[in-house]
Amino acid sequence: MNIKGNYVTLRAVEEEDLELLREMINDPEIEKMVGGYSFPVSKVQQKGWFESISDNKNDIRLIIETKEDGAIGFANIVNIDWKNRSAFHGIKIANKNFRRKGIGTDAVMAVMKYAFEELHLNRLDSSIIDYNEPSKKLYCKCGWKVEGIRREAIFKGNQYHDELVVGILKEEYEELIRKNNYWKR
Amino acid sequence: MNIKGNYVTLRAVEEEDLELLREMINDPEIEKMVGGYSFPVSKVQQKGWFESISDNKNDIRLIIETKEDGAIGFANIVNIDWKNRSAFHGIKIANKNFRRKGIGTDAVMAVMKYAFEELHLNRLDSSIIDYNEPSKKLYCKCGWKVEGIRREAIFKGNQYHDELVVGILKEEYEELIRKNNYWKR
Amino acid sequence: MNIKGNYVTLRAVEEEDLELLREMINDPEIEKMVGGYSFPVSKVQQKGWFESISDNKNDIRLIIETKEDGAIGFANIVNIDWKNRSAFHGIKIANKNFRRKGIGTDAVMAVMKYAFEELHLNRLDSSIIDYNEPSKKLYCKCGWKVEGIRREAIFKGNQYHDELVVGILKEEYEELIRKNNYWKR
Amino acid sequence: MNIKGNYVTLRAVEEEDLELLREMINDPEIEKMVGGYSFPVSKVQQKGWFESISDNKNDIRLIIETKEDGAIGFANIVNIDWKNRSAFHGIKIANKNFRRKGIGTDAVMAVMKYAFEELHLNRLDSSIIDYNEPSKKLYCKCGWKVEGIRREAIFKGNQYHDELVVGILKEEYEELIRKNNYWKR
Amino acid sequence: MNIKGNYVTLRAVEEEDLELLREMINDPEIEKMVGGYSFPVSKVQQKGWFESISDNKNDIRLIIETKEDGAIGFANIVNIDWKNRSAFHGIKIANKNFRRKGIGTDAVMAVMKYAFEELHLNRLDSSIIDYNEPSKKLYCKCGWKVEGIRREAIFKGNQYHDELVVGILKEEYEELIRKNNYWKR
Amino acid sequence: MNIKGNYVTLRAVEEEDLELLREMINDPEIEKMVGGYSFPVSKVQQKGWFESISDNKNDIRLIIETKEDGAIGFANIVNIDWKNRSAFHGIKIANKNFRRKGIGTDAVMAVMKYAFEELHLNRLDSSIIDYNEPSKKLYCKCGWKVEGIRREAIFKGNQYHDELVVGILKEEYEELIRKNNYWKR
Repeated sequence: MNIKGNYVTLRAVEEEDLELLREMINDPEIEKMVGGYSFPVSKVQQKGWFESISDNKNDIRLIIETKEDGAIGFANIVNIDWKNRSAFHGIKIANKNFRRKGIGTDAVMAVMKYAFEELHLNRLDSSIIDYNEPSKKLYCKCGWKVEGIRREAIFKGNQYHDELVVGILKEEYEELIRKNNYWKR
Repeated sequence: MNIKGNYVTLRAVEEEDLELLREMINDPEIEKMVGGYSFPVSKVQQKGWFESISDNKNDIRLIIETKEDGAIGFANIVNIDWKNRSAFHGIKIANKNFRRKGIGTDAVMAVMKYAFEELHLNRLDSSIIDYNEPSKKLYCKCGWKVEGIRREAIFKGNQYHDELVVGILKEEYEELIRKNNYWKR
Repeated sequence: MNIKGNYVTLRAVEEEDLELLREMINDPEIEKMVGGYSFPVSKVQQKGWFESISDNKNDIRLIIETKEDGAIGFANIVNIDWKNRSAFHGIKIANKNFRRKGIGTDAVMAVMKYAFEELHLNRLDSSIIDYNEPSKKLYCKCGWKVEGIRREAIFKGNQYHDELVVGILKEEYEELIRKNNYWKR
Repeated sequence: MNIKGNYVTLRAVEEEDLELLREMINDPEIEKMVGGYSFPVSKVQQKGWFESISDNKNDIRLIIETKEDGAIGFANIVNIDWKNRSAFHGIKIANKNFRRKGIGTDAVMAVMKYAFEELHLNRLDSSIIDYNEPSKKLYCKCGWKVEGIRREAIFKGNQYHDELVVGILKEEYEELIRKNNYWKR
Repeated sequence: MNIKGNYVTLRAVEEEDLELLREMINDPEIEKMVGGYSFPVSKVQQKGWFESISDNKNDIRLIIETKEDGAIGFANIVNIDWKNRSAFHGIKIANKNFRRKGIGTDAVMAVMKYAFEELHLNRLDSSIIDYNEPSKKLYCKCGWKVEGIRREAIFKGNQYHDELVVGILKEEYEELIRKNNYWKR
Repeated sequence: MNIKGNYVTLRAVEEEDLELLREMINDPEIEKMVGGYSFPVSKVQQKGWFESISDNKNDIRLIIETKEDGAIGFANIVNIDWKNRSAFHGIKIANKNFRRKGIGTDAVMAVMKYAFEELHLNRLDSSIIDYNEPSKKLYCKCGWKVEGIRREAIFKGNQYHDELVVGILKEEYEELIRKNNYWKR
């Protein structure tokens, strides 16, 4: 089923979304802020990725969509470890304007709601490159904890950067929504 | 052959029906009421499912259709166990308006007629999540019995729910139509 | 080569004929009268059947066609046993109106002409569900003999039905056309 | 599970049995008495047949075995039609001596017990070439009825022979064992 | 890792175990007591099954082994539903003598310990044919509850039998071992 | 090339080593101390793993070997991230006796020497389950730093455990061997 936040809907990736995903990957400003990495990506390569993801029970890739603006970003819940009940989560918003409007928060909240309340996970993992202040704020606001620092784990812009290990437990998510009443606003 | 109820026709799934099926799977309200479960489903994944079902002698997937409204839902007779002469049956109606007009009853009656009078089965199984009162009423009205309760069998909406084990025998179906004259109305 | 009757032509099945075949299979009235059986059939499944029949030396599938009305039915000569020189034959006419105009007779006569005079067979087999009076008349008129009754061989409409074993030998066909001059009318 | 008669056990075919099966097929005396037919069969072809039968839910091939003599024959239950609840059955005993000792009767009784009491079938079919008196006696003794005669259906020894259509219903089997107490001897 | 009970070890199935498994499946006495069903199984078919099970993350098949007697039975944890945290469990002991010595209890206890304490499941399902009194006693002793009765669900020995739906929750297992101190004996 | 420590040699995995690896995976005591997880593993599954690892440029699997005792353990350098110049490393020693004799230290030192001096990596990652004191000591002695704690990341023995995130940089390794002269002893 689709995943509903207060503002966004998270839905499966369609072929029509590939260009948006490709633009985000090929945009140096966006790639600077995330841990991942790729060579410049062609349409053919992006389509190949799309075909490779369709039959997978341990990785969910999602388009972030709003009513007004349609597809504006990407979120995932991957490497689901069903026995330990954990998974890795990441997010990317295509356009700077959207990044400041609570869209990111709503997407992360929706991911957590789905991961903890439907997938029945106990823990979500993520990682943040040390100079990405907006992401630190976003995840902090959403109740995540910094659990460690993998020193010099990422090489970007001609130097090594530390990578923050961040995580949240189901009980912390539940405490958060009890306090901020997020789903009852 | 197609399966005729008093109002509905049950027919094979066509490629044109995939969008309807996908909308039902992605609709959180509908998914809340059924036992199954899926990640958000893309068009490509829905098509992949369609291609995977075409060559199968133990599973029947059907579109529920009415003259006035065309395709409005989905029913199946799956896991046919030819030796024990039983199968599992489920149903989904896309639109709330249709759910109250006897469409569901007619679809279940038509499924039973086909399963018992043509497929020559002796028993149909289904399961109902404990809070799904409309389904309980529907199957009760169609002569099914609650045979058990699988405790905490389904996790949805952040808690475990019991699942009702329901079933009907051919002789019970025959008793029902003798009494209510369903096929002679 | 195409097979010519007095009125009909029997020709190979083309992709354009699939919808006619599918309608006949999905029509409960027609399926009631024949021994075979299928789940509701989708376009994709019908196409799959079509692709599966193309390379076959022991089974002939034919469309019955008239000048005025085009494709109106289906006939086959299958399970050809070259050593014993026998085969199984069946026929279906799509539309009730055609079933009473000598079209069926002409198609069966054409099938026999081809089977005995070209394929060099000695015997044709068929089977008829016991309540199918039109078929009994049709095959009787075409010189076939009832050779046996397979008791309770077919389950349809919630009960077992006997199945007539019918057959005709080449010499009987030759006797028939000598008497009724069928091909010289 | 293996199938137990009063004297014989019917079990799955093993690679070690192939030579026995090949000898029966290649033995003109045995082949004269059965309806089937094959070119002379090599070891490689017999092995190819063996490999082709292993993954099949509608055909059972069985070795007839006794404690004293090991593998002595072959029986099958094939073309299982689960919806109509019928199947075709055949039997072959390798050695003349065994054919007169009630082994054949016991094997047919065990096949019927399994087909009717475990597989839940309603009808078994078989066919007998018209001059095979021992088979006629065997199946008659086991309660089967001659239901028809397919004239000139088999060509063997330079002439056509009629083929008896024989069958038995579950209720007839049950009547038989009530009367002759076969399983309580 | 291997799973240790107080007496038994549960370990992966090896090629050397196939003959034991095949004997159990082909033994009518054992098959009478379990819900499953198979045609007589050959060595080649058993090997085919073995090859088909090797790469599977949702089904565990285990050999029950004791120090004194080696491999004596089979247990499984299959259809693992990671999201709902449930699975189906079954057990078979080859030899009657072993069935009365607490071996069955120890194997079920070890399965539960692994399923609840390592796989992190919340619920185990099983089913018992209604006349299998030893299994009812065994599972009752191990804390399982009868949750329902699927009427006429199994056809064996020429009649329908009811099938008990049984289950146990993690908390019930924990309560049991607290009371009977099973792992501290 | 093989990798030489002061006492151990690290070499490629051979088919002869599979039984050692399988014993370690199936040994509950060893599995309790490592983060990973597996169902009981059969010989065939172990062989399947072996065949799957042979053609891989980003994962190195190694057998730890001593002159006196031959193969005694397993080490790996996996998920090599060539751009960020990091990789994940793990180690297992089969026998308790070996675990206290500096064998572990020598293996980790050899892994680092190879990873930093030959593979040209900048960073190695590992993880340690919180109660594994011997591993903490081992890696500490080898210059690794605890960089974080992934809370409740591992479920074993019926509870969640924290997982230590540990790492070492090339410069730290170089500092270490300058001080302790490890390679000049």
